[in-house]
Amino acid sequence: MNRRDFFGASAALTLGAAVAPTSSAFATQTTEETDKRAEAKLRICSQLGPAPGNSLEEKLEKAKKYGCDAIEYGGECIGKGAELRKKAEDAGLEVSVICWGSHGGDLCSEDVSKRQPGIDDLKRALETAGELHANGVIYVPAFNGQTKLTNQEIRQLLMEFMPDLAKFARDCNTNIILEPLCRMEAYFLRQVADGASIARDVLRAAGIDSGIGVMGDFYHMDTEETSQMGAFISAGSLLKHVHLAGGVEQPRRTFPGENSMTFVDGFRGLKYIGYNKFMSFECGCAGRDKEEAFKNSIQFLRDQWAEA
Amino acid sequence: MNRRDFFGASAALTLGAAVAPTSSAFATQTTEETDKRAEAKLRICSQLGPAPGNSLEEKLEKAKKYGCDAIEYGGECIGKGAELRKKAEDAGLEVSVICWGSHGGDLCSEDVSKRQPGIDDLKRALETAGELHANGVIYVPAFNGQTKLTNQEIRQLLMEFMPDLAKFARDCNTNIILEPLCRMEAYFLRQVADGASIARDVLRAAGIDSGIGVMGDFYHMDTEETSQMGAFISAGSLLKHVHLAGGVEQPRRTFPGENSMTFVDGFRGLKYIGYNKFMSFECGCAGRDKEEAFKNSIQFLRDQWAEA
Repeated sequence: MNRRDFFGASAALTLGAAVAPTSSAFATQTTEETDKRAEAKLRICSQLGPAPGNSLEEKLEKAKKYGCDAIEYGGECIGKGAELRKKAEDAGLEVSVICWGSHGGDLCSEDVSKRQPGIDDLKRALETAGELHANGVIYVPAFNGQTKLTNQEIRQLLMEFMPDLAKFARDCNTNIILEPLCRMEAYFLRQVADGASIARDVLRAAGIDSGIGVMGDFYHMDTEETSQMGAFISAGSLLKHVHLAGGVEQPRRTFPGENSMTFVDGFRGLKYIGYNKFMSFECGCAGRDKEEAFKNSIQFLRDQWAEA
Repeated sequence: MNRRDFFGASAALTLGAAVAPTSSAFATQTTEETDKRAEAKLRICSQLGPAPGNSLEEKLEKAKKYGCDAIEYGGECIGKGAELRKKAEDAGLEVSVICWGSHGGDLCSEDVSKRQPGIDDLKRALETAGELHANGVIYVPAFNGQTKLTNQEIRQLLMEFMPDLAKFARDCNTNIILEPLCRMEAYFLRQVADGASIARDVLRAAGIDSGIGVMGDFYHMDTEETSQMGAFISAGSLLKHVHLAGGVEQPRRTFPGENSMTFVDGFRGLKYIGYNKFMSFECGCAGRDKEEAFKNSIQFLRDQWAEA
């Protein structure tokens, strides 16, 4: 490839919308979505833990003050959708997602009797997400040690109960969001492309086009992915959420910018797919002044986004 | 992102070399390689099966005549490296790789006694690959039914014996090439990003920077990947080979262009990573005239490459 061809190729890469090929029935999500991809936006959010402040109200106020557009609630919000949406709105924030978790791995337990209660509780979380106008409920099939099922058995089981759950989520105007984790926390579902393929298969099985997706967490991705950009492009329009944290290098999993990990490669992928949903802090703080670290990290992320 | 930002972002995406950020110790392969990525080239190759002709010599001659740059041998070449390299050279072709397979799944068998003979035979294949000046030996850990080990056990086992094997491959100036397959053929290792992460982990464990990589087969990728482009970017410099075939739509797994599957999205990924190794036909023929189909498919691929 000579210099001219190089630019020619990149122009095509950029202008995918203009040259998007005919998709086959099994074409990729990304290709199918190329025509309609949105304009990418950096919309920062925070979980309550990393947000500075000593009360919910103070955390919401400071998140807004330093540039967040949304807040991410944890499982404590279930059943309090209207109340907590109002609190966020009063602070000028949206609610991004509910960080729910695995429910002890019950939905994918080898103990069949545990599964339905887990499914029922996930439905309650999805209902609350709908009330919060949140984009989804983060779901982890199983942390290490929570199930005796093998990867193959877990995937098969997900394909059994997820299509109905995804329809339920869609009817709540929200999504189940599969979260890939690093091997230290979960062996099943470690890469974004794997989560995307599960979500795609569930959507096909259910005959719907929303209700389940995948997320990427920069901390976990630092261990499991060979390319942050490739991972996000693999997710494409199935990417519903992003968690922000530095990588495994010390100081580990702290505010972006507190260790040397770069976000530029991943942000290029997010720009390419037109990502306009939220990116939320899920991290610790290496510095002594959390408020200063929070503020600095948002500026760092804006600089990285501009560079991407 | 407004229109101007969109082009700005895409320029950065294109010109990764100019804006590549500082890499952390755990940074992605792709980011690390961005500075030194090569110029992408479409270099077509064929296995002996899809090549038209009734003898080895005729197949080599026709492959060359219709525009191939290399030939891919199968396991029958083991021990005949010098002889078969000369035959390829006489026809004006290089040898891309040896398509070896799983050796009955022996290297990852639950029967420990089967493993070492499998490893020894893979070493013989790697030696022959060195004699052929081939880029690698395609290796499948296990087809469905060939091992009772779980995914997690297979991955752990690979991490035990692969570092030494990768060093052996490097000393032969070649590579072990992991091949992800679709679920109908193998449950372990179905996505390119997964294979890339295994290769990366093996290289780190061995303390070397070549000797093992991954490949992508468009047919298998059609089932397992949500984005051909994302998959290839995830592989980055670890991508050592590509197999060419149409997707699962009918006529299934035939010459590219014989069904409606597009290669443009994947080719964009290959251009982005500067792929300059071979892409080899491993496919059937839907048409009656294989020679005509072979010729037409090469033209189709050139057109798709130009469009990407």
